[in-house]
Amino acid sequence: MRIDLNSDLGEGFGPWRIGDDAALLGLVSSANIACGGHAGDPEVMAETLAAAAARGVVIGAHPGYADREGFGRRVIPMAPAAVGRMVAAQIGALAGVAALAGAEIRYVKPHGALANLAAEDRAVAEAIVAAVASQPGALAVLAISGSVLEGVARAAGLETYSEIFADRGYRADGRLVARGAPGALLDDPEAAAARLLAFLESGEMPVVGGGGLRLAAHSVCIHGDGPGALAMARAVRARLEEAGVVIAPFLGG
Amino acid sequence: MRIDLNSDLGEGFGPWRIGDDAALLGLVSSANIACGGHAGDPEVMAETLAAAAARGVVIGAHPGYADREGFGRRVIPMAPAAVGRMVAAQIGALAGVAALAGAEIRYVKPHGALANLAAEDRAVAEAIVAAVASQPGALAVLAISGSVLEGVARAAGLETYSEIFADRGYRADGRLVARGAPGALLDDPEAAAARLLAFLESGEMPVVGGGGLRLAAHSVCIHGDGPGALAMARAVRARLEEAGVVIAPFLGG
Amino acid sequence: MRIDLNSDLGEGFGPWRIGDDAALLGLVSSANIACGGHAGDPEVMAETLAAAAARGVVIGAHPGYADREGFGRRVIPMAPAAVGRMVAAQIGALAGVAALAGAEIRYVKPHGALANLAAEDRAVAEAIVAAVASQPGALAVLAISGSVLEGVARAAGLETYSEIFADRGYRADGRLVARGAPGALLDDPEAAAARLLAFLESGEMPVVGGGGLRLAAHSVCIHGDGPGALAMARAVRARLEEAGVVIAPFLGG
Amino acid sequence: MRIDLNSDLGEGFGPWRIGDDAALLGLVSSANIACGGHAGDPEVMAETLAAAAARGVVIGAHPGYADREGFGRRVIPMAPAAVGRMVAAQIGALAGVAALAGAEIRYVKPHGALANLAAEDRAVAEAIVAAVASQPGALAVLAISGSVLEGVARAAGLETYSEIFADRGYRADGRLVARGAPGALLDDPEAAAARLLAFLESGEMPVVGGGGLRLAAHSVCIHGDGPGALAMARAVRARLEEAGVVIAPFLGG
Repeated sequence: MRIDLNSDLGEGFGPWRIGDDAALLGLVSSANIACGGHAGDPEVMAETLAAAAARGVVIGAHPGYADREGFGRRVIPMAPAAVGRMVAAQIGALAGVAALAGAEIRYVKPHGALANLAAEDRAVAEAIVAAVASQPGALAVLAISGSVLEGVARAAGLETYSEIFADRGYRADGRLVARGAPGALLDDPEAAAARLLAFLESGEMPVVGGGGLRLAAHSVCIHGDGPGALAMARAVRARLEEAGVVIAPFLGG
Repeated sequence: MRIDLNSDLGEGFGPWRIGDDAALLGLVSSANIACGGHAGDPEVMAETLAAAAARGVVIGAHPGYADREGFGRRVIPMAPAAVGRMVAAQIGALAGVAALAGAEIRYVKPHGALANLAAEDRAVAEAIVAAVASQPGALAVLAISGSVLEGVARAAGLETYSEIFADRGYRADGRLVARGAPGALLDDPEAAAARLLAFLESGEMPVVGGGGLRLAAHSVCIHGDGPGALAMARAVRARLEEAGVVIAPFLGG
Repeated sequence: MRIDLNSDLGEGFGPWRIGDDAALLGLVSSANIACGGHAGDPEVMAETLAAAAARGVVIGAHPGYADREGFGRRVIPMAPAAVGRMVAAQIGALAGVAALAGAEIRYVKPHGALANLAAEDRAVAEAIVAAVASQPGALAVLAISGSVLEGVARAAGLETYSEIFADRGYRADGRLVARGAPGALLDDPEAAAARLLAFLESGEMPVVGGGGLRLAAHSVCIHGDGPGALAMARAVRARLEEAGVVIAPFLGG
Repeated sequence: MRIDLNSDLGEGFGPWRIGDDAALLGLVSSANIACGGHAGDPEVMAETLAAAAARGVVIGAHPGYADREGFGRRVIPMAPAAVGRMVAAQIGALAGVAALAGAEIRYVKPHGALANLAAEDRAVAEAIVAAVASQPGALAVLAISGSVLEGVARAAGLETYSEIFADRGYRADGRLVARGAPGALLDDPEAAAARLLAFLESGEMPVVGGGGLRLAAHSVCIHGDGPGALAMARAVRARLEEAGVVIAPFLGG
């Protein structure tokens, strides 16, 4: 058994930082790096790219709505084509800094409200996929397992990988339990790790209310901010390794 | 005789526009397009890239200080290496949008206060050159004739072109007459065109106080904003063409 | 007969300007000045405040979503209380510059998407009213005639004035015809002026499909941007004056 | 003996926070709250104003260069009058939110690079003082002891208070030892507290190289960010209280 762990990194801006990037880089195999939209600036990008490269962590671009004040968690009304142009500009910005830093971007994973919208809205997903497909370097897409984006990216011929969440509850229909509803969040690192192991062994994700759900999963999303996030991440990685699961990037070599 | 005409384009933001880009695209052979730093956003970039490509105008990136409020005309104190990362991010952003739009960036010309600083400060010039050299696509540099940037770019092995100004007075030492000083600006389109033709024929730029200055010149910078700018641009182009000068991009084919 | 004319002014940012503020200040009796949210910065505020004060035009604050890229025309998802804090900060910013400039803010009129939302959403209207009511100076509210904001402001005891549009079609239910639908925009200045005069004489606004609508109206909104806007504004003012209508601020002396 | 302790608070933005504001509010008697320029937004302002008011801490506005990316630590080239307008807008923004929150601004203390410039540049100091003087509420000024701003504010008739630094070395000429030079920073909380006590008892601040400097001091600036800052703040307060010094706002009642 083998799985990737990914986390959002480089989500600072100017003097501000969020999350313990150094600690996370010791836990994950893939790093989604903010591109100056919801977070990030050239300085933060450069330091994060260099740190990820130094740890041998595979680098992805993590574009989001250009809304630092809302941290990309608000849907900014935009035409789908404008979303595509925004995503292209952000991937490009990170790629520009990466070129100077001697690092390389391998995949794209949308952030926050943009990821949630692209999980359900075909036109937005298509705009993102067109933006990714147009960039040099044959970038892959890391999409929420079961999302519209996942299907659109695969149909467009992009190398497409699926991510699941270690700390979010799943419903029988494949969707995440809405935040605030019972079972939305798994707070207990041990329970989250156990559920993940059960999934990796069986291929079926336990869902709220009982039963299981078949899910594609190349990567597990690890959150780095918020209280307890790092403890969760460490527990998940430790239990996986104890169980003999190999933590390795979905994009090898 | 043959010369390029370049102008700064795409210097809008959100709902705002500056200059008559459509008119300028009918006059110039190279377009310096803002990259979201001093001006520009993904929408403005995309529309300007498409318009330039449709007119067959060669496209350059036009990075500047990330200071929209000051339009890149203020020196923002930054370490030279940070300038390089900022420039790399901006070139990348424009390149990302260009890839999606099917357009191509061929060269880089710094904007405003950044260009002025790079004309005199070796460390800043070197940081910009390192940023340009690191990007894919073998980008050229368009630098102020006689500037430190010009020398640094050429020494680094980058394809380097020199620009002169149609409407600015020159001093015998090769510098521009400071704004506000007598002879700083040529307001009369006919006088500016005549001076330019005299330079193209003799290779010597008339300087304030009399005499001439040998200057390398692959391109003439045409301003598009401000009252009279477009009239100046039209007069310069018309006089050059009447004199048999071929207006063509410094980056052919 | 007597009516106020109001227009949005000071909607520039950094080097950019929109609309011909100088011309509009010769036409209107009340000026809604942007507060640094959707447009405006301290320099633009100061110059617009000074120009309005010099012309004897009554000054209002014109807060909008803090979204320059979208010019306040996009609904940014925010809790109503956060809208109130944003509005309070923007009124305060303009008031701060006004105090330094020796000018005075007399009323508040929301901008764009915020105005449209406050016209229909009671919680947002209440948040805006609470923000206005908390400020020093007993500020009035200028609200779209028939809007939720108008009712909420009046119920809260604020001095409340109603505005109508010279160039927008009305429906029998009191709403504006949606942009894009037939009759949404009156392009012909003479037709717009004639309709406005008919309304001022009868108290009934002609609606699409025939018939009339009783509307409260203390002010007519005049647009300053877009092709033909200034011609429309001039025609409206001229026809009103020819008909003996006195153009005067809703907030006298 | 009696002294005020002040600290910079509310220096977050969007999702980001800096410093432990809750802890600092338990230590200081005056809070300098960021105004949306170098840091702060309406949400951060509101939460910080409410927290300060709840703790009975006197509130000041803390304007800085409108440069979040640089955190107000870079001098942005601006005409002095433009600095004044920027400061007026920022004080107004905070005052607007304060009015809605039921809190009150009592004084103004410039931030970072703006404070350093106003300590030496008379035109900038005058512009700031004019902005402060124009605002309602008879705001006081908290200025670096011995600075040009202190003198200009006092000469203009503003209530003016002087601050000293617990953790910065002083030179015999009254200036701070430049960062990076020997003695610039006092890292040891006990040593810093002891020096402060010695100053409060003697009225002479020990300077590098030996000897003392007479300094006016109504307030001690306590830093809240950076490693060890909170420990420093706690030690300073504890030692002062142990020595019988009353910690109280310079603006009583």
